[in-house]
Amino acid sequence: MAKSIYLDNNATTPLESDVLNAITSALSKAWGNPSSSHTQGIEAKAIIEESRQHVAAMLGAKASDIIFNSGGTEGNNMILHTAVKYFHSGQDWSHNGFPDKEHLPHFITSNLEHDAVKLVLEHFAEEGIASVTFVPASPKTGHVMVDDVIAAIRPSTCMISIMLANNETGIIQPVKEMFERVKQINTSRKTIPKILLHTDAAQAIGKILVSVQDLGADYLTIVGHKFYGPRIGAIYVKDLGSSKEVPLYPMFYGGGQERNYRPGTENTAMIAGLGQASKLVTENIDKYNRHMEKVRDYLEERLKAEFGEEICFNGRIGKSCRIPNTCNMSLLSVDCSGSEVLSHCTHVQASVGAACHAQNRPSPILLALDIEEDVARRAIRLSVGRETTQEDIDCAVNDLKQAVEKIQSKNTCISAQRVE
Amino acid sequence: MAKSIYLDNNATTPLESDVLNAITSALSKAWGNPSSSHTQGIEAKAIIEESRQHVAAMLGAKASDIIFNSGGTEGNNMILHTAVKYFHSGQDWSHNGFPDKEHLPHFITSNLEHDAVKLVLEHFAEEGIASVTFVPASPKTGHVMVDDVIAAIRPSTCMISIMLANNETGIIQPVKEMFERVKQINTSRKTIPKILLHTDAAQAIGKILVSVQDLGADYLTIVGHKFYGPRIGAIYVKDLGSSKEVPLYPMFYGGGQERNYRPGTENTAMIAGLGQASKLVTENIDKYNRHMEKVRDYLEERLKAEFGEEICFNGRIGKSCRIPNTCNMSLLSVDCSGSEVLSHCTHVQASVGAACHAQNRPSPILLALDIEEDVARRAIRLSVGRETTQEDIDCAVNDLKQAVEKIQSKNTCISAQRVE
Repeated sequence: MAKSIYLDNNATTPLESDVLNAITSALSKAWGNPSSSHTQGIEAKAIIEESRQHVAAMLGAKASDIIFNSGGTEGNNMILHTAVKYFHSGQDWSHNGFPDKEHLPHFITSNLEHDAVKLVLEHFAEEGIASVTFVPASPKTGHVMVDDVIAAIRPSTCMISIMLANNETGIIQPVKEMFERVKQINTSRKTIPKILLHTDAAQAIGKILVSVQDLGADYLTIVGHKFYGPRIGAIYVKDLGSSKEVPLYPMFYGGGQERNYRPGTENTAMIAGLGQASKLVTENIDKYNRHMEKVRDYLEERLKAEFGEEICFNGRIGKSCRIPNTCNMSLLSVDCSGSEVLSHCTHVQASVGAACHAQNRPSPILLALDIEEDVARRAIRLSVGRETTQEDIDCAVNDLKQAVEKIQSKNTCISAQRVE
Repeated sequence: MAKSIYLDNNATTPLESDVLNAITSALSKAWGNPSSSHTQGIEAKAIIEESRQHVAAMLGAKASDIIFNSGGTEGNNMILHTAVKYFHSGQDWSHNGFPDKEHLPHFITSNLEHDAVKLVLEHFAEEGIASVTFVPASPKTGHVMVDDVIAAIRPSTCMISIMLANNETGIIQPVKEMFERVKQINTSRKTIPKILLHTDAAQAIGKILVSVQDLGADYLTIVGHKFYGPRIGAIYVKDLGSSKEVPLYPMFYGGGQERNYRPGTENTAMIAGLGQASKLVTENIDKYNRHMEKVRDYLEERLKAEFGEEICFNGRIGKSCRIPNTCNMSLLSVDCSGSEVLSHCTHVQASVGAACHAQNRPSPILLALDIEEDVARRAIRLSVGRETTQEDIDCAVNDLKQAVEKIQSKNTCISAQRVE
C-alpha cells in the first residue's frame, strides 16, 4: 500500500500514544460508575477530577470552570442556548422599553463560523428564537474587524460568538481586542443585558497558546480530537457557579453529573484521554507551535518553488496571523476542483475544507473573503501536524505535482480526441 | 487488597474484552474523520455503519433506524423534546377546540422512571412547556398498570414514556401490552395527535430479549455501559426518515453527522465498541439471561438461608417478572441504612439504588411502591453480571453477614456503655 501523508489535521488528529494509554488504562481499570460510592466509583471519579485539572491548566482556568461534554458541537449549542435563556431570565430588561423587534435576544457572529455555530444561529433566526447579525469578514484581513462587530451591538445583544481561528484559512480572529472593547461597553449596560463573550477555540488549542484570561472570554469551546485527544470535548465557563455574571443552563436533565450542568454517566476513559491530551499541550505548546510552523512554511516554500505563479495561497491575507499548521491553496495550472486534484494523489490525504461540508462546491468561507469562485473551487487545505516531517512535505509536493500532470495529460488526450 | 465482588452491574458494567479490543483497535487505526473523503475517513465511516448494523440487529430494527449519541440521558432528552416539537408542528390539531389547558402537549409517564426521564418532564411542567401525568405504579405489582396509563390519556397526549425494566427493583413494565392498547386508540385519533410511544430500555438490553417490533415501540433508548459496552448510546426511531409518523427533531445543529439528527464528529472508537457489545448480546442473550438468573436466584436463596425472617426482598412483588440479575433487599436485623451495611463490607461493591441519587435517603422508587420508609432506608441493590459466580455469591453473603455482625456488636458496645 502506498505511504499515506496525512495533511488533514484540521479535520481530526490521531491520538498521541500517551492519550491512547490513558484511555485504554481507564477502560480496563476505571470502568466503575463515577457516581457510585464504592471503590470502583471513587477511582473513576478521581480520574475525572484529575483530567479537569489538566484541561483547566491548559487554558489558565480553574478546574471548577470546566464542564465535560460529548464534543464541540454540543459545547457550542449549549453556550448559544444559554444566552437565549439568560436573555429571557432578565426581567429587568425584558420589558425595558425595547422596540418590538428587540424583544428577541440578539447574537453577533461572523460569516466565517463553523456550522456548529452558524447553523444553530440560523435555526434561532428561522424559528424566531433570536435575531442574528452575521458580521462579514474583511477580504483585506481574512477576519472580522473589531469595529464592525462593535457597530453591530444593539440594546438586545446578549452574546458575541466568534471563533478563535478559522478552520479553513487558519486565520486568527481579533478575539482579545474585541472582547476588551465589549467589556468596556458592558460597564455602561446597567438596565440591558451585559453581552456574553464566547469563542470556539476548536482549531486554536494545541496550535497556539490559548489563555482564557488573556482572551477575556466568558465561554470557550474545547474539542479533544483537534489536539490529539479523544472524540469528546469540554466547555470553559468563567467562574462557573461562583458568579452570577456568566450563567450556564443545561440542555439535558438527568442524574446530576457535572453539577447538573451536563448529566449523563461520565465517559471516564475519554475524559482521561482529554486530560492527558491537555497535559501534553500545556507542557509542549511552544514545541508543537514551532514545529508545525516550520513544516508549514517549508510546505508553502516548496509549493511556491514547484508551482510558481500557478499557485495561490488563500490563507495568506495581508499581515493577518495564522495558526501555524494550515496552508490553504489553489492550483491554477489545471482547470479542476481541489477535490479532483486530491483524488489523483497517491499519498496525500487532505480535504478541500471543513470535513462536514459537501466536497463539490466552493467553500463558503473562501467566497466570504471575496476569493474568486474559480479559485475557491480549486482550493485545497493542507494542515500539517506534530509528526509531519520535511520528507513528508517533499513527498506530498511531488504527489500533488504528479496529480496535476496526470490531469493535464488526461485533458490533453481529451482535447486531442476532440480535434480528431 | 481484599477481593472485590462487584454486584453493581445495574450502575455500570465492565467492558467485555471483545469490546475493549474493538475500541482500542479503532482508536489506533480508525482515527480519521468519518466525514473526510480520503482513506482515513472512509475506513472510519465503514466501522460506524457496521456498528449501526450490529445495534439494529440486536433490537430487530433496521440500521437506518439507529442514531448514535453520547448516552441514555441524551437519548431520553432528545426523544422527549421531539414530542414537544411534534405537538406544535401539528397545525391540524393545535387549534382544534382543545380546552385552554390542553394547548400544552401532554406526557404520560410513571413514578418509577430514571431521572433522565423524570427530571426532563418535571422541567417541562415547571417551565410550562408541557403538562405531565406521573401514573403511580401499583404496590401490588411493582409496575404501572396498563389501565391506569390508558385512563390518563387526553386529547393533547403526545407521548407515553415508560421504562422497560426498573433499575432498582428490576421489575419489567407491561410495555408491550400498553403500546398495543395505545395503538388501537391511535387509529381513532384523526384530528388530534397520535400518541408516540417511548421506552427507555437501559436496564433491559443484555438481560432480556428486547425486540422493537415485539414491543411496538416508536422510540427506544440504548445505553452502552449497561451491557458491557462503552459510555455512549443510541436511540431507535421507527422507520426514521422514511415515515412521517414517527418524527425526530435534533437538539443540536452542526456539521450534518447522523443525517443531521445528531451532528458532531462521531466518536468512532466508542461506536465500534457499542457495535461489538450489541453483537455479543445478539449472539449470547439466552446464555447471559440464564446465567444471571441462576446466579441471582442462588443469591436470594443463600440470603434467605442466612437471614431468614430478617430479610425482605423488595423486588419480589406478586407474580411480576424481573430482569434476571437484580436483587433488591433490606436486612432487618440491624437498625441501619443500606449504605451503612455496605460501608462495613470488605468485598461487596454494590449500591442502595440508582448511582446518581443521594445515598442517604430512602429510595423514592421503593417509597412509590408503598414499601415502608424504614425498610426502604435499609435497601441494598445487588445486581449480578455475566461473570458473577456462585463462589462470588458465597463470599458476598458471608461478607454481608460479617458486616451485620460488626454493626450489631458495635451497637451492643454502645448500649453497654450507655448502661454503665
